[in-house]
Amino acid sequence: MSADKFERIDRLPFEKVFKDPVHDYVHVRHKIILELIDTKEFQRLRRIKQLGTAQFTFHGAEHSRFSHSLGVYEITRKIVDMFERNYPKEWDLSMRLVTLCAALLHDLGHGPFSHTFEKIFDTDHEAFTTDIILTEGTEIHEVLSRVSPDFPNQVASVITKEHKNPQVVQLISSQIDADRMDYLQRDAFFTGATYGAFDLSRILRVIRPYDKGIAFQYQGMHAVEDYVVSRFQMYMQVYFHPASRGMEVTLDRLLYRAKQLYQNGELYPAFPLLEPFFKEDYTLDDYLRLDDGVIQTAINLWTTSDDAYLSELSTMFLNRRPFKSVAYQKGQDEPIIEKLQDIVEELNYDKEIFTRINSSSDLPYDYKLKSKTPIHLMYGDGTLVELSEASPIVRSLSGNLHGDHRLFVPKEFLEGTKENQEVSMFQEYYDEFQRYIKNDRINDPSKKQ
Amino acid sequence: MSADKFERIDRLPFEKVFKDPVHDYVHVRHKIILELIDTKEFQRLRRIKQLGTAQFTFHGAEHSRFSHSLGVYEITRKIVDMFERNYPKEWDLSMRLVTLCAALLHDLGHGPFSHTFEKIFDTDHEAFTTDIILTEGTEIHEVLSRVSPDFPNQVASVITKEHKNPQVVQLISSQIDADRMDYLQRDAFFTGATYGAFDLSRILRVIRPYDKGIAFQYQGMHAVEDYVVSRFQMYMQVYFHPASRGMEVTLDRLLYRAKQLYQNGELYPAFPLLEPFFKEDYTLDDYLRLDDGVIQTAINLWTTSDDAYLSELSTMFLNRRPFKSVAYQKGQDEPIIEKLQDIVEELNYDKEIFTRINSSSDLPYDYKLKSKTPIHLMYGDGTLVELSEASPIVRSLSGNLHGDHRLFVPKEFLEGTKENQEVSMFQEYYDEFQRYIKNDRINDPSKKQ
Amino acid sequence: MSADKFERIDRLPFEKVFKDPVHDYVHVRHKIILELIDTKEFQRLRRIKQLGTAQFTFHGAEHSRFSHSLGVYEITRKIVDMFERNYPKEWDLSMRLVTLCAALLHDLGHGPFSHTFEKIFDTDHEAFTTDIILTEGTEIHEVLSRVSPDFPNQVASVITKEHKNPQVVQLISSQIDADRMDYLQRDAFFTGATYGAFDLSRILRVIRPYDKGIAFQYQGMHAVEDYVVSRFQMYMQVYFHPASRGMEVTLDRLLYRAKQLYQNGELYPAFPLLEPFFKEDYTLDDYLRLDDGVIQTAINLWTTSDDAYLSELSTMFLNRRPFKSVAYQKGQDEPIIEKLQDIVEELNYDKEIFTRINSSSDLPYDYKLKSKTPIHLMYGDGTLVELSEASPIVRSLSGNLHGDHRLFVPKEFLEGTKENQEVSMFQEYYDEFQRYIKNDRINDPSKKQ
Amino acid sequence: MSADKFERIDRLPFEKVFKDPVHDYVHVRHKIILELIDTKEFQRLRRIKQLGTAQFTFHGAEHSRFSHSLGVYEITRKIVDMFERNYPKEWDLSMRLVTLCAALLHDLGHGPFSHTFEKIFDTDHEAFTTDIILTEGTEIHEVLSRVSPDFPNQVASVITKEHKNPQVVQLISSQIDADRMDYLQRDAFFTGATYGAFDLSRILRVIRPYDKGIAFQYQGMHAVEDYVVSRFQMYMQVYFHPASRGMEVTLDRLLYRAKQLYQNGELYPAFPLLEPFFKEDYTLDDYLRLDDGVIQTAINLWTTSDDAYLSELSTMFLNRRPFKSVAYQKGQDEPIIEKLQDIVEELNYDKEIFTRINSSSDLPYDYKLKSKTPIHLMYGDGTLVELSEASPIVRSLSGNLHGDHRLFVPKEFLEGTKENQEVSMFQEYYDEFQRYIKNDRINDPSKKQ
Repeated sequence: MSADKFERIDRLPFEKVFKDPVHDYVHVRHKIILELIDTKEFQRLRRIKQLGTAQFTFHGAEHSRFSHSLGVYEITRKIVDMFERNYPKEWDLSMRLVTLCAALLHDLGHGPFSHTFEKIFDTDHEAFTTDIILTEGTEIHEVLSRVSPDFPNQVASVITKEHKNPQVVQLISSQIDADRMDYLQRDAFFTGATYGAFDLSRILRVIRPYDKGIAFQYQGMHAVEDYVVSRFQMYMQVYFHPASRGMEVTLDRLLYRAKQLYQNGELYPAFPLLEPFFKEDYTLDDYLRLDDGVIQTAINLWTTSDDAYLSELSTMFLNRRPFKSVAYQKGQDEPIIEKLQDIVEELNYDKEIFTRINSSSDLPYDYKLKSKTPIHLMYGDGTLVELSEASPIVRSLSGNLHGDHRLFVPKEFLEGTKENQEVSMFQEYYDEFQRYIKNDRINDPSKKQ
Repeated sequence: MSADKFERIDRLPFEKVFKDPVHDYVHVRHKIILELIDTKEFQRLRRIKQLGTAQFTFHGAEHSRFSHSLGVYEITRKIVDMFERNYPKEWDLSMRLVTLCAALLHDLGHGPFSHTFEKIFDTDHEAFTTDIILTEGTEIHEVLSRVSPDFPNQVASVITKEHKNPQVVQLISSQIDADRMDYLQRDAFFTGATYGAFDLSRILRVIRPYDKGIAFQYQGMHAVEDYVVSRFQMYMQVYFHPASRGMEVTLDRLLYRAKQLYQNGELYPAFPLLEPFFKEDYTLDDYLRLDDGVIQTAINLWTTSDDAYLSELSTMFLNRRPFKSVAYQKGQDEPIIEKLQDIVEELNYDKEIFTRINSSSDLPYDYKLKSKTPIHLMYGDGTLVELSEASPIVRSLSGNLHGDHRLFVPKEFLEGTKENQEVSMFQEYYDEFQRYIKNDRINDPSKKQ
Repeated sequence: MSADKFERIDRLPFEKVFKDPVHDYVHVRHKIILELIDTKEFQRLRRIKQLGTAQFTFHGAEHSRFSHSLGVYEITRKIVDMFERNYPKEWDLSMRLVTLCAALLHDLGHGPFSHTFEKIFDTDHEAFTTDIILTEGTEIHEVLSRVSPDFPNQVASVITKEHKNPQVVQLISSQIDADRMDYLQRDAFFTGATYGAFDLSRILRVIRPYDKGIAFQYQGMHAVEDYVVSRFQMYMQVYFHPASRGMEVTLDRLLYRAKQLYQNGELYPAFPLLEPFFKEDYTLDDYLRLDDGVIQTAINLWTTSDDAYLSELSTMFLNRRPFKSVAYQKGQDEPIIEKLQDIVEELNYDKEIFTRINSSSDLPYDYKLKSKTPIHLMYGDGTLVELSEASPIVRSLSGNLHGDHRLFVPKEFLEGTKENQEVSMFQEYYDEFQRYIKNDRINDPSKKQ
Repeated sequence: MSADKFERIDRLPFEKVFKDPVHDYVHVRHKIILELIDTKEFQRLRRIKQLGTAQFTFHGAEHSRFSHSLGVYEITRKIVDMFERNYPKEWDLSMRLVTLCAALLHDLGHGPFSHTFEKIFDTDHEAFTTDIILTEGTEIHEVLSRVSPDFPNQVASVITKEHKNPQVVQLISSQIDADRMDYLQRDAFFTGATYGAFDLSRILRVIRPYDKGIAFQYQGMHAVEDYVVSRFQMYMQVYFHPASRGMEVTLDRLLYRAKQLYQNGELYPAFPLLEPFFKEDYTLDDYLRLDDGVIQTAINLWTTSDDAYLSELSTMFLNRRPFKSVAYQKGQDEPIIEKLQDIVEELNYDKEIFTRINSSSDLPYDYKLKSKTPIHLMYGDGTLVELSEASPIVRSLSGNLHGDHRLFVPKEFLEGTKENQEVSMFQEYYDEFQRYIKNDRINDPSKKQ
């Protein structure tokens, strides 16, 4: 049975809805979508927070990848419905189901605190997404296979960008896709960051398919431009916030230390659900048992570890007492960083464990890189214009990385900078450290300003 | 040092804020409030969801007791600031700090899925709140004691309603207190349930202290009335939602079964963090190590338990496959319930484990019960009127319990009611069961309609 | 050509939208709707404010009947689209166009400050609505006639409730119709009155056609209940606000005086656009030339009238210096009112011109009156329940008028009640007047409390 | 009495509020502010719409200069309150009253459709603002004089930027002042244009006084940047919308024609309230009698004028049938414009009356022009950085005019471009005109693309 035949018999007599604070309702009109949502692999996303450690800076940002995934599905559904009505010639009607399923499932392979976890354990959430879809035995695979034996492959190929229909691929992943549109709106809603808002309904009106992919009617240029700026703002103000990165660094050092201990046979308690990862020998099933609660429970247990470093780092993470940081200029301040690390070590902190550099950078928009599909505007007569050509604002952000580099250290070395705080007993170390800091940045005291 | 002297030296030179999606910003002007927030006992509230199993019906409702506690603090701060400015005669200025601390800490003793947990393990979150505040050795106690040795007692007495100042007590707990005002706004925001919204800023304008407690200027009557209705709506539409209660029942039976197994020496794996509770021999420290993630990790492990009941219930909970339910009329339908339970048991389900009645009820407002402080309106000349006297709407809700009684059973017995669903292989049991159901309620087929 | 044939050829290739702050976008898919909006009779609604004198209390409420009319259309469109998709058997597809046109045009006959204008000049906006639709020569009639010669009649019959299809009639006018749903949301938005908000999207999900009209799925009961309460709240807090009524009374007395002068041949300047109404001899064209600006320009000119009463009242209205008021109890306080009017007259104010009683009352819901269609809930099996049977809140409001009676007088007699205001030179009259006032209500000083 | 002494005796015992849909409440704590609001000159602002002809494109944008003025006052009050609390050394406490009064009154001199009116009648709303404040006999002057004889001068000097305190001046008028902050938020709210929203509450947290004026804490850079982008977006998408400018051009030509006729003694009816302006001999009193309703009533009467041009233009304006437009490139397309004007004239339209070029341009930000105060960011140690140095986005907009140039003509020449529209009988003129148009812009057909 072909996907579009299946789609017809699969239609629900009454649509089912999920109440959503961002999109009001998520509308489901196919039984298969309901069944995918009900799988254990998808339900697991309820237990994985969308923004990882950002919740420790923006306390409202406790939403999960589950709600984000429903949101991506809903935005995609709105676009597909509109394409079917307004562009029956340009849009292939048989793509409906594969597009909706790929939208829903695109983040399926995410695990707890992915960003940090992947660095320590060398895993890859995108590969897991594909695995879950393609592996016989997962509930997701079983549901998708009901459409047709090849359907899991089709869905996976959208997510890996190998699907032959460029419109479908770009809807799910490009520089302005349903994924990004949902997470910006959603993260803005839950953090309270109004600058993340952009005119989603206007973008959904001007988006259109054409033979090579997705474009936007020219008159919607400013809405697209505003989307690029909103995304940039969210990166600068939310995703790259130093306090969240301080928690990330804490978690990173903690997992690093635990793994180190495990491999030396010194980790107590060992926590069975994590063992396969310490051993670097895990299965998909091992991975699917992980969630935020598992990680936090391990850390909870490690607060009483015999290893002083592990218990200190675990306590820091569990009770939200992150490393603090200063910005520095790459390619210039490295010698000072070494000095600062030495000061930390002089106070009996292992500098490998208790100092860390962390860089954040994002490319808000690019049209030259092969890996990036440019955003195109379309005139009434079909002529295309690349976005940064039409918008000086986008041009100013285009092709440049934005973000910063920071050195993270125990808070004792930095907290005294705030007025009215008592300085620790290690006054001289603190003072020496502070000689290199000015306006929250590393500063070479030997240079004249 | 007295609390108000302490307050002056404790003022932060610049206020610190927390970005909040509901109140925009939470404003902190005292160092002690920051220090309380930074304690490990308070940070633990980040790991406990405000609405327990409601997150499984309203997927946006993933917010924690941490963000709610900040919100209660913020509403209280706004009221106290206004009282200080407008009612310097009626309001005792020295109450500022104790009021703010009590607001912040009132929910401190909550644990994971409190409602269910307390029933199975016979714990009491209110007693834990007081314990945490009064027990030497907690970080909370240590911070509060810095104000004065008696200060922890004062704060606790507000929460237990024993404090001598009725205004302070009523701000923190009464039929219209800062706690309820925050949770209604917050839960409405995160679920997307617009009916939970009421005019908080208007209520904050008309609230006022008088010698016996808190009253509301008469001209604000409709705003208070609307608050009562909004609260009623949230109970009916969100808090009592059958699907959330289906998850609650699942969790209840799961913990019941685990405890049963433990006490028979048959629970594997036993999960150390929960053992003190299975043994009914726990300390405050044991309690403080619990959070949502710990419970979910235990359940995660139990999905592979040897006990078929425990693994089945654990799988149901983890993958969100709750018991389903029908409403019934108490004092009338009990004989039918017994029949239905028998049908379930005939299909090899233990009826003690796999059927459960669950009643939800709330008293939206009352002015007669001794335990309830009536809401009073105040005329310009100081005359008081009790709310339900002035509002027919409130009168219609007053003194009556609202809610319903439901029987929960495995979904196989009820799902067939929805059009187009395949009915299980146990067609005859299903059909027999369904004879007693009409319009989603238990219905006696032997009675004429 | 039948309406549904016309509808097909009339479809726009791309829908056109109007940006709306309440509904985000108003979606137009028929050329005829665009043409109706572009008629001069419909454009005139831009110059007539939706809430008349309420703008003088709620300064944001400056929206016009034009934007409300688009909103009623949009809500109706959403319902009709949903009916077409979900209830093809219960809903007659050929009703689409007549329903949408009636929704758009239902308020077409409104004039400036209708409520007051109609009382003084004995006009009727509903009759004007029908006239505009049915009179040859109006642009509205011309556009509607293009569908079919009988189409204007059909549209008018929906508005007069004579159309044979009860579903169409109830969508446009009943106790829960598209008109009310839009004005509540819209007036709440523009005034800032959050209590006017209700869950429109939920109501639009549970509304359904059945053979005798419109009903609501039972599970949506609380959303409908909340709508009734929100409407009640808007009446009590916004529509019946004493300050707005003070402006209304001012306008009423002003137009009354101007008419009196005109009929005595003493009105200078006479203002030609209003003459036909003073003469009680006007045409539809005369009426269609009126708008808020015309009335305000007349009043502007009259501020310099030779007649002291007219110039005083005109100045009061133009500069927002309304009559002030006290509440009284009907059937009891009338003797006191007479005394108060005499006090006013003693100060050389004509009591016919400078005192006025004004009563506001609304029936929030009724199911007994013949003129009111009850709101029905429908169970899964088709059984109907009348709303107040299911909801104690609605029952408490049902069948009772709510509102109040107030006496309006020049502000000198009441302003002194506010603290810190200087009392006029007429201290003794003021004091005498105030003897009868307590807590902003008329109060008989001879009675013991 | 000095202003700050006056301020103390002038404090209201209870603050008074105005419900505002944008700021929730506007808080008034001084009697003098209430008295200013109650003057007839300020109340007149209720009858003048904030956005002039933009209401004809964005139907929600019907708000008045009255509500905007209250909003500017409220934002200023919030800033002043914060300065008094946090910067008692940097901010001169005695500036409170003059700052609040200037904020409230800064737009007092605006008249109906100012932009167009001023071009035709050579008036200046800023000069009128000063006149109203300084002229003895206005109610505004009378109220301000009660503070001190020199107080009106002080208030006026803030508005004319001559006041000696640069902080006060910059709060009221600079590139990021209370005026702009309110109109962006307000216009976005009423139009429904979400891109106009920026994080006002964050900006109100980081704004601070220093010796040379106003600066923003460095960590708030992105919030200020987002404000600049939002303002840019509002100009591009709302304020410069071609349809609104089509109405503006219609009004411009209409008033131009009426004046022409008046000066030739041929205007019937003449409309007394406008005569002083046709004669170019008006007083402040004449100006203060004007409002939107007066202009629209004149136009209403002129729809039946004997002059065919005037009646045509009046009908176009009253019934919203604006001129339509195409964009062109300045300094290049002028020869084509002449040709197009000739085509219009060939169809018996006077080209002076029925064609018009209209240019819109805005300088989103500049730091070089003497007339513009740069926006400064301040580091913790007091160092200043100019905004565009820190933000590449702002740099990309800085110093460049943005906007476009358009030719406006009767709609017959352009409407045919839309699919499915009947083309007028003048097919050949239309076709000839269209030869020069491509993608909604003027295009030279003789040039190869």
